[in-house]
Amino acid sequence: MKIQSAKGTRDFYPQVMAVRNYIVDGWKAASLRSGFEEYDGPIFEFLKMYQIKSGDEIASQLFSFTDRGGRNFAIRPEITPTLARMVNQQINALPRPIKWFSLPRLCRAERPQKGRLREFFQWNVDIIGADDILADAEVIFTAIDYLHSAGLGPDDIVVKISSRKMLSAILETIGIGPDKLDAVYAVLDKKPKLPDDTFQKMIAEQITDPAMRRRVIELMSVEAIDAIGDIVALDAAAKAAVDELRELFETLELMGIVDFVKFDIGIVRGLAYYTGVVYEIYDRRSSLRAICGGGRYNNLLKDFGGPSVPATGFGMGDAVLEILLRQKGLLTDEMLSTRNIEYFIAIAGDEFKPRAVQLTTQLRLKGLAADFSYKSTSLKKQLKAAQTANAKYTIILGSELTENNQLVVKDMATGNQEEITVEAFLKKYES
Amino acid sequence: MKIQSAKGTRDFYPQVMAVRNYIVDGWKAASLRSGFEEYDGPIFEFLKMYQIKSGDEIASQLFSFTDRGGRNFAIRPEITPTLARMVNQQINALPRPIKWFSLPRLCRAERPQKGRLREFFQWNVDIIGADDILADAEVIFTAIDYLHSAGLGPDDIVVKISSRKMLSAILETIGIGPDKLDAVYAVLDKKPKLPDDTFQKMIAEQITDPAMRRRVIELMSVEAIDAIGDIVALDAAAKAAVDELRELFETLELMGIVDFVKFDIGIVRGLAYYTGVVYEIYDRRSSLRAICGGGRYNNLLKDFGGPSVPATGFGMGDAVLEILLRQKGLLTDEMLSTRNIEYFIAIAGDEFKPRAVQLTTQLRLKGLAADFSYKSTSLKKQLKAAQTANAKYTIILGSELTENNQLVVKDMATGNQEEITVEAFLKKYES
Repeated sequence: MKIQSAKGTRDFYPQVMAVRNYIVDGWKAASLRSGFEEYDGPIFEFLKMYQIKSGDEIASQLFSFTDRGGRNFAIRPEITPTLARMVNQQINALPRPIKWFSLPRLCRAERPQKGRLREFFQWNVDIIGADDILADAEVIFTAIDYLHSAGLGPDDIVVKISSRKMLSAILETIGIGPDKLDAVYAVLDKKPKLPDDTFQKMIAEQITDPAMRRRVIELMSVEAIDAIGDIVALDAAAKAAVDELRELFETLELMGIVDFVKFDIGIVRGLAYYTGVVYEIYDRRSSLRAICGGGRYNNLLKDFGGPSVPATGFGMGDAVLEILLRQKGLLTDEMLSTRNIEYFIAIAGDEFKPRAVQLTTQLRLKGLAADFSYKSTSLKKQLKAAQTANAKYTIILGSELTENNQLVVKDMATGNQEEITVEAFLKKYES
Repeated sequence: MKIQSAKGTRDFYPQVMAVRNYIVDGWKAASLRSGFEEYDGPIFEFLKMYQIKSGDEIASQLFSFTDRGGRNFAIRPEITPTLARMVNQQINALPRPIKWFSLPRLCRAERPQKGRLREFFQWNVDIIGADDILADAEVIFTAIDYLHSAGLGPDDIVVKISSRKMLSAILETIGIGPDKLDAVYAVLDKKPKLPDDTFQKMIAEQITDPAMRRRVIELMSVEAIDAIGDIVALDAAAKAAVDELRELFETLELMGIVDFVKFDIGIVRGLAYYTGVVYEIYDRRSSLRAICGGGRYNNLLKDFGGPSVPATGFGMGDAVLEILLRQKGLLTDEMLSTRNIEYFIAIAGDEFKPRAVQLTTQLRLKGLAADFSYKSTSLKKQLKAAQTANAKYTIILGSELTENNQLVVKDMATGNQEEITVEAFLKKYES
């Protein structure tokens, strides 16, 4: 019986796994560099957890199931709700600010397309318990630090930054009530992906007053923070939000990454839970979906039954990132090896096989990566196998062993060979 | 609204995550030492894939769900079916023997109990395409190599080994037909966990002839390979299987791990797919469930629609292993750190905060782990924070910076302090 894999999932054959590890290990290293601690949650949670902020309709985008006890669960589509649940459960025991990262596997029941899969990996970096704009700057820095370490420069990527706090204050000044905000955000967030007439129709449904609508559209075309005041008179709340944004850009300059960032009032973010700074990272040509998205979400922990604790963070998926790294030539299959052997043990005849097995396992027990050939093949073929396994050295067991109890050790990079007695060789690795 | 996690799952808070990483990283290192390549599959597969070898009733032990297209999926309870599917799909492109390992997250809808969770991690090591007993020996070696590297010796653990091939040949000699074998295996596998009268009743249901039953029970009490011939006359097939087992023990001796292994005819394994050598690893006192189980499964790839290719491998879960390592004092929370900072940047006054942020991020962009305090606290508290973050050095920004442009670098292990200009310090890390 022939079986297929599920649509939108990936089989991680060793070469594909090496790519995943390369990305995930890079995420992890950047997180640790910035002092974040790793956490994770279960792969499935109660379905209702995902419905708190997103409504019941989210269920259709999830893989949900019922256990024998009739409880409804879903495979996690994001880890932020889990983070909020976990932090709430230990809120009094955890020293703040909580600087945590995670590398979760996530699933969404979406139609698979380029850069969008039904199963993917996402890097999550969050700071909880710090209302300081420095925390927003630090998570943005951590994203850039990773992308920079992967070889991407300010000519390759850009962090587009705005503020929900500022936008909501200005929209209220224009006359849009708080009850309308979430719906207006949703339309504004979709603007770049929509044909203009579709956008105009959708925004007209949310903002019926033509003058009001015109001012909102004018606002969304502003290119510099300083130009906002020309369109609307900023009240105290809007001024404070604008000042906060300015402070963020100053801090990012102090951090040495100002070339990577840009104000963009069009960044709104779809999710309802953002309350302050919001941002998305794009390739400079904007030919791909966002690589990363994040922002401040000061109400989420409270919405999940905990105390009011400020929080900020981002998520970066592996799919779009991989496409970009490959486009830029920064990720190739050739640069990644699935095996890295220290010693490959080759034999000049079948009579040496037991000694090969013995020496290989001796080296492994000493903590060294070592391997040998299963098949009885020529020395030439074994040296080829050693190369494939990325061996640093090949040890040849042959007449030198029978006659002088010596190993022939070949340096695979230089081709140099030296002879050494078995005892002298093993002595090097005595602990 | 307060939300709970699902029963039988774990929240990996940083300290718990450090334990998981310690175990999983150890598995990975041992796999790479023995020349295995990492692979992974999707977290969910078509439900029918798990029903091929285990029948439809397996569905009740799985978390299964239906997508909008009406397709039935299940979260993976094991990765071997995925391995068989993946290898079959690429069978002509993959050089053999295929030496692969995986570190999958798995879920089973079981009642949670000690060492048995609904969500767990399992180390899988397999060699496909080698019928040689050397392959069985090598996967057993890899398991022992890991356990040895974690600090467990032959007084702590034992690999109990038998052979399905031998058992089936002998049972046939005794008169038990091939159609009865799977049912008899299932009862024999449960023997150690059953009260004797329950076992007697269950075996009597499968083997109705009392004389035949007596011989099977006598066989199952044999303690040495050489004693089997005293109970039943071995036919050619049984002799070949016994010889193969002897060769396995000889190879394990050559590999230097014979103290860890023991013949045990009671090891049968529950799963139907084993065809040759089978084994389980236990703590010596047998106070816990098996740490690891595996064996040869030469028919699985064929059963999954591929060609007939021999295979052998094991699975080792994280839950029982963690219990054993903790019992032996080989794993403590104290030995694992969630953070390992190179430089902690402390400030002697708030006026130095921007410089602290600048220096910290400069170091991070150079690839070093660095951190600072969010809160304005005393130098003493900052040094405490540096200790908590496992910092190797604390850099103090104070009057030395204002007066001489110097950093005070404190070695956290020795307590030694030295002064160095900012330029000289950063020069050390110029790339």
